Amino acid sequence: MTLDPALRRDTRPLFDTDHAHVLLANDARWPWLILVPRDSAVREVHELSPGARAGFLENASGVGDVLQQTTGCHSVNTAMLGNVVSQLHCHVVARSPGDPAWPAPIWGFGSAEARDASAGLPPFALAVRAAFER
Amino acid sequence: MTLDPALRRDTRPLFDTDHAHVLLANDARWPWLILVPRDSAVREVHELSPGARAGFLENASGVGDVLQQTTGCHSVNTAMLGNVVSQLHCHVVARSPGDPAWPAPIWGFGSAEARDASAGLPPFALAVRAAFER
Repeated sequence: MTLDPALRRDTRPLFDTDHAHVLLANDARWPWLILVPRDSAVREVHELSPGARAGFLENASGVGDVLQQTTGCHSVNTAMLGNVVSQLHCHVVARSPGDPAWPAPIWGFGSAEARDASAGLPPFALAVRAAFER
Repeated sequence: MTLDPALRRDTRPLFDTDHAHVLLANDARWPWLILVPRDSAVREVHELSPGARAGFLENASGVGDVLQQTTGCHSVNTAMLGNVVSQLHCHVVARSPGDPAWPAPIWGFGSAEARDASAGLPPFALAVRAAFER
């Protein structure tokens, strides 16, 4: 996996699918996963081949589905931005009224709160990984 | 087309595909289109059927492709948020250094600058519509 330095710094690998690396964002403020396609050179989703794009986006949808089931969130934010980090990546974030940035976007909001690495993976991350392993 | 009142207020219809209504956001600060799926009751992309989802997301990717070709933007922001408006909708926005919110997200940023309705459709909107009519 070739990963942009900022993505490498701010995430940890969770699992891989045929179409994506799934990463856990190291920010405890939100249940937040990030998908990166297998082709590390791609910057925009329209640059992927139709098959790779379909698989990648279906993975993102599946991650959001489990995230919502697990957290009971109000909404799932699914976003590919690329303004700061050019390597294509798709954020999937569980959002609920009362969360730190609600209802504004999370990107660029305040400072990350690092997850406690000794606490193991959070339940939502375990659930998503388990769903994709079935 | 059944459209959330806020979406109806802030956009104008541009064209329809088999899978989406494509709307022009009435904010001249960015080249900004919004896709709404045919099923107006859906709130999250994972609630769509696999076929409807694939078509909807492929449409969003195609819109972003033409938007980038037409505007020469640095990045395309493709995002489904749903924190404020629950009806599923996908923003596709051309972003470039120096734009009003760069590099921060556009949602909730400042106040919309209404497009001049008498000026007709902007070139990027005409180009996207033409690409989907081919």
